[in-house]
Amino acid sequence: MKHARVACFGGIHEAEVIEDQLKLADGRIIGQSDVVWLTPIEASTIFVLGLNYADHANEISFKAPEEPLVFLKGPNTVVGHDGQTRRPSGATHMHYECELAVVIGRTARHVKKDDAYSYVKGYTIANDYVIRDYLENYYRPNLRAKNRDTLTPIGPWYVDRDDIDNPMNLGLRTYVNGELKQEGTTKDMVFDIPYLIEYLSSFMTLSENDIILTGTPKGTVHIYEGDVVETEIEGIGSLKSTIVGDKNFGR
Amino acid sequence: MKHARVACFGGIHEAEVIEDQLKLADGRIIGQSDVVWLTPIEASTIFVLGLNYADHANEISFKAPEEPLVFLKGPNTVVGHDGQTRRPSGATHMHYECELAVVIGRTARHVKKDDAYSYVKGYTIANDYVIRDYLENYYRPNLRAKNRDTLTPIGPWYVDRDDIDNPMNLGLRTYVNGELKQEGTTKDMVFDIPYLIEYLSSFMTLSENDIILTGTPKGTVHIYEGDVVETEIEGIGSLKSTIVGDKNFGR
Repeated sequence: MKHARVACFGGIHEAEVIEDQLKLADGRIIGQSDVVWLTPIEASTIFVLGLNYADHANEISFKAPEEPLVFLKGPNTVVGHDGQTRRPSGATHMHYECELAVVIGRTARHVKKDDAYSYVKGYTIANDYVIRDYLENYYRPNLRAKNRDTLTPIGPWYVDRDDIDNPMNLGLRTYVNGELKQEGTTKDMVFDIPYLIEYLSSFMTLSENDIILTGTPKGTVHIYEGDVVETEIEGIGSLKSTIVGDKNFGR
Repeated sequence: MKHARVACFGGIHEAEVIEDQLKLADGRIIGQSDVVWLTPIEASTIFVLGLNYADHANEISFKAPEEPLVFLKGPNTVVGHDGQTRRPSGATHMHYECELAVVIGRTARHVKKDDAYSYVKGYTIANDYVIRDYLENYYRPNLRAKNRDTLTPIGPWYVDRDDIDNPMNLGLRTYVNGELKQEGTTKDMVFDIPYLIEYLSSFMTLSENDIILTGTPKGTVHIYEGDVVETEIEGIGSLKSTIVGDKNFGR
């Protein structure tokens, strides 16, 4: 089943996705184009993998890490499907990153790989936008590169875990203005989902609705104001965002 | 005024601190030793400054950064006053870090230094524990060093902004088992509070109850199971935590 969270009829509703319609929890039916899409999960903590596809690490001149390279993103970065993502004026290296997002379903601590999927609620799509202009610093903080408002579209919905046969064998594609620009498969992750859940839960507690963004394959290109970016994952769907400039946000 | 959040009488209560007592929002009075202290604010995002006192950067063989070095901590790390902090078995370099914590009071975007304090709700104390054993990696992720459960005591209460004359002139002290081990002053911050609020809000939106941990001065020493650590800030109070070993947490 596909689970969405949308705004319509003056409120916020959980909804089941049925073909091109949405069935709200209270039974009302509404067309997908008649809602504002919110992120399907209100994330507790958002974990993000850096350089988790070796081809992408190579593409941006880094070596693949020897252990998972994980950082956090704040709630200010998140935006739902069909939303706007802001491109700061003066940026030259703004890139999308199509990523499989794993939603944790229950409290997890000291989980072993073999049992890891039982802690997964489902899967959604994330676009982990980055402004690479701001990555130059000996200490590698990435707040200015990754933690800006609206840099993390998530959605449109999440799909129940058991509806995805093998999350480690899903095609990922990104289209910019309708043209295919990025193509990969989750098979190429350096650290796979069970390993990541074992790793993270080995030193801290994961909670329901934590989300793990699992990294992106190669194929990033510069994007500009006005671009429409669609990140698509096999078996889940397609997440759209539109790039807008500073003047649309004003001061 | 000092604002606490405590558990007692079967529930969670906001409370005003009056000498050695607590006045709950519903009017009941209770002794400070008869409650479980929760963090005074349920933080939205927790921002943490690295190396924001030059003497401390020098002490651990780093140079002070040229721009603020900021990372995020997840809610799993947080614990209230008089709580337990877990020391992983096998760690050799576990350190406390006494830090002034700034609580944001309202949505902040493009704030200028001169106006920054008007966005502050108040101040509390944080102990930004770190397991430095886990800091060795080219990419400098710090999840295993800083984001473990219970590594961030915050409290005991927050003090209203206007009750602190000058937050940039407060003494900080840490006692381990009653012995003074760390002493400094917020005067020595590399990037001061108004600068930090201007900096962070220049590229993202800060929200009410975001908390900024402003870094620690020099004076870190190794700590061990059984140690009682008190981080004290002039005009605010003293935050206590007890170090416990893995066996107290079990698996």
